[in-house]
Amino acid sequence: MSLQDLKNWFATHREEIRRDYFTFLRFPSISADPERKSDCIACAEWLVSFLKKADISAELVPTSGLPLVFGKMEGKRKETLLLYGHYDVQPAVPLEEWRSPPFEPTERDGMVYARGAVDDKGQIFYALLALRAYKELGMELPCQIKLCIEGEEESSSSGLIDSLGKLGSQLQAESLLVIDFDQWERDIPALTLGARGIAALELKLRGSRLDLHSGIYGGIAYNPNRALVQLLAGLWDAEGRVQVPHFYDGIAPLSAEEQKMCQYPHERAWFSEQFGIRAFGGEKGASLQEASWFYPTLEINGIGGGYVGPGVKTVIPAIAEARITCRLVPHQDPDQVLNALTAYLQSRVPDGMELELVRHKGMPAFRGSPNSLLAKAVARSSEEVTGNSCRYILTGGSIPVVPALVSALQIKEVAGMGYGSLEDQIHAPNERFDFYRFEQGFLTVGRMLELL
Amino acid sequence: MSLQDLKNWFATHREEIRRDYFTFLRFPSISADPERKSDCIACAEWLVSFLKKADISAELVPTSGLPLVFGKMEGKRKETLLLYGHYDVQPAVPLEEWRSPPFEPTERDGMVYARGAVDDKGQIFYALLALRAYKELGMELPCQIKLCIEGEEESSSSGLIDSLGKLGSQLQAESLLVIDFDQWERDIPALTLGARGIAALELKLRGSRLDLHSGIYGGIAYNPNRALVQLLAGLWDAEGRVQVPHFYDGIAPLSAEEQKMCQYPHERAWFSEQFGIRAFGGEKGASLQEASWFYPTLEINGIGGGYVGPGVKTVIPAIAEARITCRLVPHQDPDQVLNALTAYLQSRVPDGMELELVRHKGMPAFRGSPNSLLAKAVARSSEEVTGNSCRYILTGGSIPVVPALVSALQIKEVAGMGYGSLEDQIHAPNERFDFYRFEQGFLTVGRMLELL
Repeated sequence: MSLQDLKNWFATHREEIRRDYFTFLRFPSISADPERKSDCIACAEWLVSFLKKADISAELVPTSGLPLVFGKMEGKRKETLLLYGHYDVQPAVPLEEWRSPPFEPTERDGMVYARGAVDDKGQIFYALLALRAYKELGMELPCQIKLCIEGEEESSSSGLIDSLGKLGSQLQAESLLVIDFDQWERDIPALTLGARGIAALELKLRGSRLDLHSGIYGGIAYNPNRALVQLLAGLWDAEGRVQVPHFYDGIAPLSAEEQKMCQYPHERAWFSEQFGIRAFGGEKGASLQEASWFYPTLEINGIGGGYVGPGVKTVIPAIAEARITCRLVPHQDPDQVLNALTAYLQSRVPDGMELELVRHKGMPAFRGSPNSLLAKAVARSSEEVTGNSCRYILTGGSIPVVPALVSALQIKEVAGMGYGSLEDQIHAPNERFDFYRFEQGFLTVGRMLELL
Repeated sequence: MSLQDLKNWFATHREEIRRDYFTFLRFPSISADPERKSDCIACAEWLVSFLKKADISAELVPTSGLPLVFGKMEGKRKETLLLYGHYDVQPAVPLEEWRSPPFEPTERDGMVYARGAVDDKGQIFYALLALRAYKELGMELPCQIKLCIEGEEESSSSGLIDSLGKLGSQLQAESLLVIDFDQWERDIPALTLGARGIAALELKLRGSRLDLHSGIYGGIAYNPNRALVQLLAGLWDAEGRVQVPHFYDGIAPLSAEEQKMCQYPHERAWFSEQFGIRAFGGEKGASLQEASWFYPTLEINGIGGGYVGPGVKTVIPAIAEARITCRLVPHQDPDQVLNALTAYLQSRVPDGMELELVRHKGMPAFRGSPNSLLAKAVARSSEEVTGNSCRYILTGGSIPVVPALVSALQIKEVAGMGYGSLEDQIHAPNERFDFYRFEQGFLTVGRMLELL
């Protein structure tokens, strides 16, 4: 089988592909909205029927949340490759900013506009089409293939994660390919070899039973807003290094291979143009790329206390609060990081001020090797499809389901692929994908199966 | 005339007083609510008619906002005493927390429950009754008396303040008695001899055009929440002293007389019991009373940036913001304080972060002397009425209209009196006043006229 065979198959089936892709996109499978539960299930059922029509064994598998679409195909070697994606999508608000309805896919200038066009319906759908084409072209799969297409990625993956103990033997696999990522840039493919972990903490400082008049009690009551800014300000030194003792414990310096991954960074000017970022906040000594991929962070995601509306309200609030998340790199344990942060905060609270902490369940970082059979097959395939070298990258974000799967199934090889792009507006109004990249994804998965 | 004559007059007219007081309270004269404008005007008109019935010359005087009730009475000396109060009230929300309707005065256990029962309808109304009784008892007033009862005290006094240029000669007076204050405690009267000034600043720090994903851009973008807490944390040293250069310029140390005013302080335990305050925040070296009355403050009234709702939202907000007010003591100029604060903040903003500042119109502190004829007359009268020594106090709050009147009319003597109490719940649901203190106020004003 040549790449041309896959291209021909795609060309021959173009209208049918378009029709099925649009049908998949029409389900408003918003997992965060309880009122869309039946739409989510209908979407999953449609996927199962789509797979069965392609002669792929498939079923709905219940979890503590929305069901998985689980599929299974036989192949030459007894090892199993698990393909992961999700059929749920982000909410489509604000609706009024969509140029065409989010659940009525519309083509304009070669782009398909719909919620989920890329994330992740478009990406997982080209992979399923590649499996179908591979079979129809008379090829035998290189190994056992399983499909795990979940329904709650956009709202925590908790159904799948909570059910992993029960589903372990059904999902059992040696390698995992997550199909939910970006290319580097047009025609330059990327292989995503890891994500940072996450640890999250809510904190509240209470100074009094009720809000106080800042004139009458100003100079008497210790203002929780003042206590909060002073408590949080000490979390970093002037060079951006986190000051919580033991925060960095166990982190290894960048390997030569890791340093090489940072050789094509976006420059400051690129971030300024894209997002208006003109103040850069990573640790001194780290490049932007290093700071985003290989350094942990501590970010205040939210801060609030008192009144920030129009006009002046002269209040000393009873409570000031903040939300913090840390992004973690390998060898950092989320619980230990939260312990260290908690100890730091508790030891610095002003006398008489009450500190209330709420910890969220964290997740460690994950890493795949660029030298695994899986990584090499995806990289080489993507290079054949695009004609350009594949970039080995990480994401600074966190994908809790991946380390959970790796740990529960004792996965040995993990990698992430995809043809998403910054311009696709995922999670925002007017999400879009183009057929050009959709086909690149299809070809990459198809050819990867041959190289594996 | 003896105090007993006033008591007898009050006893004789008790039912009529009660009826008129309740009528006054029934007007929902909420100045902050544009829909209550006609109620405010009806209330003012009723006051004018009440004064005319008592044979006191009165009229509505237009301002750029709601009208003043202006009254005038002749007396022996040619100097003029201006009595100040207000007929507007705070909003009554949340309505569901009122045990009886806020604009249907209701007596329970000797207390009158209604919005405005104390602040300031109750307080100004006993003063007007005292003027009426004084005349009816055949006494000649000691000096010219003018009444300035405004309609926007609870929503900025801007109509009166903005119109002072025009109204200067009509309101002209040598001394000013503000009837809108608290006693020290039951049967212990107080004379309020000053308030702190105020200077207010809004600040916003912008780090990017739009909110950013804290995973992908964490380590790249400088988080405005971090910049904000670090910028604001430096405003005080560890001992609570404001670090803005020139903030304290020109402030005089406490005089012996001022130190004496602090000899009956509330202790920490009192604040803990009343408000749950257990963390005390004034400057080191100042007693709580000194810090509240004689020291300036810098308070963060509000702070906000990103997400503090339920769950975790991994955002680096585009903007973090704060609201700051400074309370000022004599010799501090609000504009100079805001200039100093602005310079401090601007010099410490991280590179690339945009700082946006909005200044509000400030007002300096004001002070009256305990040795003025007015202060002595009010103090002695209140002592006769209650049988206890009058306390000379200040308020840590700010009453912008008072320094505005003092400055515009070139007032020579200023003092504040009242029989309010912490338990009256002014500005809150179930505001209340008792006839016992109402009568004490009436007697104090009546007897003060004789002592003046």
